[in-house]
Amino acid sequence: MTTKPAKVIAIYPGSFDPITNGHLDLIERGSRLFDRLIVSILRNESKQPLFSVEERMEMLWDVVRDFPNVEVDCFDGLLVHYAAAKQATVVLRGIRAISDYENEWQMALMNRRLQPDIETVFLIAGEAHSFISSRLVKEVIGLGGSIAGLVPQSVEIRLRNRLQRAASNNI
Amino acid sequence: MTTKPAKVIAIYPGSFDPITNGHLDLIERGSRLFDRLIVSILRNESKQPLFSVEERMEMLWDVVRDFPNVEVDCFDGLLVHYAAAKQATVVLRGIRAISDYENEWQMALMNRRLQPDIETVFLIAGEAHSFISSRLVKEVIGLGGSIAGLVPQSVEIRLRNRLQRAASNNI
Amino acid sequence: MTTKPAKVIAIYPGSFDPITNGHLDLIERGSRLFDRLIVSILRNESKQPLFSVEERMEMLWDVVRDFPNVEVDCFDGLLVHYAAAKQATVVLRGIRAISDYENEWQMALMNRRLQPDIETVFLIAGEAHSFISSRLVKEVIGLGGSIAGLVPQSVEIRLRNRLQRAASNNI
Amino acid sequence: MTTKPAKVIAIYPGSFDPITNGHLDLIERGSRLFDRLIVSILRNESKQPLFSVEERMEMLWDVVRDFPNVEVDCFDGLLVHYAAAKQATVVLRGIRAISDYENEWQMALMNRRLQPDIETVFLIAGEAHSFISSRLVKEVIGLGGSIAGLVPQSVEIRLRNRLQRAASNNI
Amino acid sequence: MTTKPAKVIAIYPGSFDPITNGHLDLIERGSRLFDRLIVSILRNESKQPLFSVEERMEMLWDVVRDFPNVEVDCFDGLLVHYAAAKQATVVLRGIRAISDYENEWQMALMNRRLQPDIETVFLIAGEAHSFISSRLVKEVIGLGGSIAGLVPQSVEIRLRNRLQRAASNNI
Amino acid sequence: MTTKPAKVIAIYPGSFDPITNGHLDLIERGSRLFDRLIVSILRNESKQPLFSVEERMEMLWDVVRDFPNVEVDCFDGLLVHYAAAKQATVVLRGIRAISDYENEWQMALMNRRLQPDIETVFLIAGEAHSFISSRLVKEVIGLGGSIAGLVPQSVEIRLRNRLQRAASNNI
Repeated sequence: MTTKPAKVIAIYPGSFDPITNGHLDLIERGSRLFDRLIVSILRNESKQPLFSVEERMEMLWDVVRDFPNVEVDCFDGLLVHYAAAKQATVVLRGIRAISDYENEWQMALMNRRLQPDIETVFLIAGEAHSFISSRLVKEVIGLGGSIAGLVPQSVEIRLRNRLQRAASNNI
Repeated sequence: MTTKPAKVIAIYPGSFDPITNGHLDLIERGSRLFDRLIVSILRNESKQPLFSVEERMEMLWDVVRDFPNVEVDCFDGLLVHYAAAKQATVVLRGIRAISDYENEWQMALMNRRLQPDIETVFLIAGEAHSFISSRLVKEVIGLGGSIAGLVPQSVEIRLRNRLQRAASNNI
Repeated sequence: MTTKPAKVIAIYPGSFDPITNGHLDLIERGSRLFDRLIVSILRNESKQPLFSVEERMEMLWDVVRDFPNVEVDCFDGLLVHYAAAKQATVVLRGIRAISDYENEWQMALMNRRLQPDIETVFLIAGEAHSFISSRLVKEVIGLGGSIAGLVPQSVEIRLRNRLQRAASNNI
Repeated sequence: MTTKPAKVIAIYPGSFDPITNGHLDLIERGSRLFDRLIVSILRNESKQPLFSVEERMEMLWDVVRDFPNVEVDCFDGLLVHYAAAKQATVVLRGIRAISDYENEWQMALMNRRLQPDIETVFLIAGEAHSFISSRLVKEVIGLGGSIAGLVPQSVEIRLRNRLQRAASNNI
Repeated sequence: MTTKPAKVIAIYPGSFDPITNGHLDLIERGSRLFDRLIVSILRNESKQPLFSVEERMEMLWDVVRDFPNVEVDCFDGLLVHYAAAKQATVVLRGIRAISDYENEWQMALMNRRLQPDIETVFLIAGEAHSFISSRLVKEVIGLGGSIAGLVPQSVEIRLRNRLQRAASNNI
Repeated sequence: MTTKPAKVIAIYPGSFDPITNGHLDLIERGSRLFDRLIVSILRNESKQPLFSVEERMEMLWDVVRDFPNVEVDCFDGLLVHYAAAKQATVVLRGIRAISDYENEWQMALMNRRLQPDIETVFLIAGEAHSFISSRLVKEVIGLGGSIAGLVPQSVEIRLRNRLQRAASNNI
């Protein structure tokens, strides 16, 4: 029987391309539960992100600097290997809807099989954030809609700059 | 911005009529996440339990005595009021299936509204326990089926005794 | 091929025991879609309501009086028979979650079979109301929790009065 | 490794209070899959059925008499014990919707645990029957709606007689 | 408090590549609810449609010409901007299954946030159309299956022609 | 009214890229239900499989050789045409989760429409296999995780060889 470690370290993994207010809400809530919370960007070569890993880390640091027990990192390879290397025993995940739930359930069972000591812990997205996703935010701003209140202000500015640059490349 | 308390106390509320191996798995996993875990029986006058609150507390103590940071209690009234009185900031819940998820989601949002400082944290039932519920266990044993491996052994004995007594009352 | 009637009349059926802010949001939104909206209480003898049909009608009138095209009624028997008698061609329903969806889907298909001219129209509950139900509101206030913002103020007062009266009966 | 028995016997268990066209569709389809199909009524003392077990058996025999490999029976106790006694290796179940699916999944895993040799096999309800249930049929006819096409004609007559008798008892 | 506009205009947006009998059923039902119904094709450069926007508009006009209050259009950009430009206050959507429901729920909440005056209204697909999608229809005909009854006859002819042309290009 | 054929032949279609222990469990269970079970690989030109159809057939033969009534095949075109050509009257499918269920439900209804004589029969994945998929297995091994117990041993060896070869190609 394993016992509780003196300090519980949790990983909050994701793409964060870019971070939304839904992610930020989860970070704030997670920071009250665990001794250290590492927000960690998965390097996924096969996906075409809008922002580089470095840009995403900058944006994350911008919004988490006031949480004393939160830090930002990135990783590749298996999440449970990364977590073990960080001495983390918790993976933190948010659920917005049933379809999220099913994916998360499959991954949580697989991760538990791969590394039984690492526990996946779920928080349910606040009702104000239940419909926000990075994908939808990019789609809305790309089509000229307002995303005020859906992402941190610093992210909103970067998104506008990125899309203007994209537009001028197309002239 | 609230910060993490020095010690995180979690409540695992339920009926536990009786405790199953699914509950026990959750208690073991929860005990590794939080500094103190209080397994707490909801006194619900309107339900007709098989075991009294006192019997259920005994059965719980039987199986949690080896976890140094787990204790057993009972409560009535609003869960978030009880949690606040215990200085708990976490409510721990297990999810077995989608239908669980929807109930839990509604309760978690309501509880967050009633007491924003208290966080509901979810663990997904291990695949071996995903189909076990107190209700089904009682139904199976009542119809003469075997429940070995579904509940702790001490609970299995009590269930048989209870049902024999019920049977002899019916002679 | 039936064509659109000159005036579209919609029925919004329910128990409304009592009306919540979720119901009120749906009434407001529905009143902008159809020429007349009849909020109609189902008399269901087999259920034990907290408020009588007359009290519920009063509470509904209280909150809909400012909507010029909304009225309040009650009915028994088959909904589609009632709708036809009212010359309504629409049944309005709100969906909060998947479990709602499945019930509504079964009823909508059955109603369509019984009366193909009557259309069931769904609105999705606003995110702020997705976790509110009459049942949960009664449970929370019964356990001493605050329901401010979950029901109209006039309903909150009635709920407190009703529960005090219940309490003094129990001395 | 168990091998296929020479004759595969399947149980189709249920309340059948009364049989609907959805049940009948499943019986017809099941009769083409297995050597013998036993449609079997669960005696459930705690439920208040509209028709007695004997009446339900009569109604079932009425509609299955043309299927040479289908018979009608009833049982109490654990389904898997009954199935074993009948040398059946299959339990046949229909699924209409997600909420059905979750219940069935829990029961199938429990039954597999109790008796690994007995397999639960699922057919999806035809789209024309997806919204029909015994409960809804009784509700509709009780409120004066038409159930033509939802149940076999012989069942429709019995339902009308039963409800008229119920009505005259109430004079 | 906004009030009901004198004429309610609804948009039914989609790809319609090609229109199916499921879409047509929804158009017919929607035309009975609102004063004007605009069936509008989303120009989506990133998808590779089988039929051009112009072809799809032709096919739509073919089947809606008998509905006096239905017209056909196309749009790009944000749906709610387009709807506002058309003075529409309603977006009409069909739901076939749970997975549809979750997507639609996310989009409806986002659209409501972007433009609170525009209401998303849902109809549930008739049971005969619940399994039909443009994607599946193309797949079935591409593999040599019959799609009679799944799409309007004029669309069936165009689909066969398109696929024969595709085949002769491959000689 | 069609009657049961003397011998029931079932098709278990899939990609099997590669076969997992979840597939194998389903084959074993299916072999006890039907007289002949044909495990059949869908040739799908548009997908990029890890193993060729020939390799996948070899891997399947390896693990099914001990089942006297199971054979391996491949097909292209419509599944129901292939089934009819094989004189099969059953399509066997496994369901792991709700999201599977919805896809399968749509396909089962479409197939029933295309060929009413062919019945789709569902088994629920055993709880030990509910989180295993070919996609996830490839992902885990590609990231250096252990897949022992998730696939047959012969498949595990092939997967390692394939990925080493892929690696040495990248030097």
